Amino acid sequence: MPHMFDPGYFSEPFRSLCVNYPEADVYPPEQFRAEWGPIFHRGRLDGSARVLVIGQDPAQHETIVRRVLVGEAGRRLQGFLAKLGVTSSHVIINTFLYSVYGSVKAATAKDPKLIAYRNSWLDALLIGQKIEAVIALGTAANAAWNAWKESPAGTAFSVAYAPIIHPTEPESSSGHDKAKLAEATKKMLANWNAGLQALSPNVKHPDVTTPLKLYGATWADGDRSPIPEADIPAGLPPWMHENDGWAARLGDDLIAKRRNITLTVPKGVVS
Amino acid sequence: MPHMFDPGYFSEPFRSLCVNYPEADVYPPEQFRAEWGPIFHRGRLDGSARVLVIGQDPAQHETIVRRVLVGEAGRRLQGFLAKLGVTSSHVIINTFLYSVYGSVKAATAKDPKLIAYRNSWLDALLIGQKIEAVIALGTAANAAWNAWKESPAGTAFSVAYAPIIHPTEPESSSGHDKAKLAEATKKMLANWNAGLQALSPNVKHPDVTTPLKLYGATWADGDRSPIPEADIPAGLPPWMHENDGWAARLGDDLIAKRRNITLTVPKGVVS
Repeated sequence: MPHMFDPGYFSEPFRSLCVNYPEADVYPPEQFRAEWGPIFHRGRLDGSARVLVIGQDPAQHETIVRRVLVGEAGRRLQGFLAKLGVTSSHVIINTFLYSVYGSVKAATAKDPKLIAYRNSWLDALLIGQKIEAVIALGTAANAAWNAWKESPAGTAFSVAYAPIIHPTEPESSSGHDKAKLAEATKKMLANWNAGLQALSPNVKHPDVTTPLKLYGATWADGDRSPIPEADIPAGLPPWMHENDGWAARLGDDLIAKRRNITLTVPKGVVS
Repeated sequence: MPHMFDPGYFSEPFRSLCVNYPEADVYPPEQFRAEWGPIFHRGRLDGSARVLVIGQDPAQHETIVRRVLVGEAGRRLQGFLAKLGVTSSHVIINTFLYSVYGSVKAATAKDPKLIAYRNSWLDALLIGQKIEAVIALGTAANAAWNAWKESPAGTAFSVAYAPIIHPTEPESSSGHDKAKLAEATKKMLANWNAGLQALSPNVKHPDVTTPLKLYGATWADGDRSPIPEADIPAGLPPWMHENDGWAARLGDDLIAKRRNITLTVPKGVVS
């Protein structure tokens, strides 16, 4: 069975961007898990992308797959993109190259070096390219977009834009309270519907022509879509993009947890 | 600081070889850890390689880095290559795409589909290319080379070839017996000296011109060389190619161990 994969960072300017990335002087280890290396993107780098997404920061699954948004948040995003008819013509970067540890200081998030590097990616993905819609997931991503829009290239650039609530904000904001989770999910899906309605008319070259079907008040069948195998590096086993929950940070104390990622092949793959 | 990386499988025929790889019908899960996916190569795929190396099978570090021979065996191999003046113009594939589990049945190793796929890589790396010397590490790799030499393309092809003892054979064969280890190391280094003397005159385009300095009876300073950062995918943290011992298979029973890889950032990287 053929296994499509993402060929990665072989062409410029992406090759040079992946050689020259900001390190601990820009992403301080007190605020970021710089020790696991930067994680750059997911999706099309060949100029075919029609929708650009800005996420927040990578977590443990992303650290192993070396691509952003490959877990549950990614599947919810793929569902959102599918409602726009976009099944492969997407490209995603994060606000932060490294996983956030604790919280990010305002001065760090506004560091001109941090912004300049991220803006180089946005320049490469937007200027002279075919992007028809931009989506920001959460407040940090919205700030990242605004920072680019304030740059000379961004100021001169016009594109449909929707900042939407981060795909796992309902879980983050509700603790383990089911009623709060339902309420936050409902609020998010209404917010996403507004985003879909704003963007849909502008996505003029979808992969699949599809009538816009909005979200209900809760998740429905088909609202989540798989992470495309073609977004994942060569040779990674299918369960790495079909599932999540296979990577955890374990340890008896904070430093042990920080130094650890434990991978467990899902049940049923090995018998 | 710039971080060079391996751009991977973007050009043909490697792109198609990484899309269409043999799976569990060719690599049975009783004999191979097929669940972790295939691991294809390490080194130059751009036609610049002068030395081709055939290794045996990937282990847990290779499974995370997604490149072959990145641990101690790899560093010993890099030391051997350095004695030939080869610091970057190498390319390495393995006999087996997946990590061996237990032992490999003779019928599996001789499966025409297994051999045909590996021969496609050897065809791509040898025919019309610039390889001046071929090295096989251990008996399985020697058999892999012989299988290619019996193919039509291989029969017609002439190149300097040295099958040498696998770099970690001394540890494998000696248990924890220090005297046996010293004896096996001495024997291996003598075998490697014969390999160096056979290959050295044929490596006419080394990266560095260097007089051939043979091994002594034990490891000496400089006999091991680092895994080049340019052999590793984009964004992986430096400790993944500078160290090994950071990935282990842990678990309370065989199946738990099989399903697990535990990563631990080396001490000193995170304080």
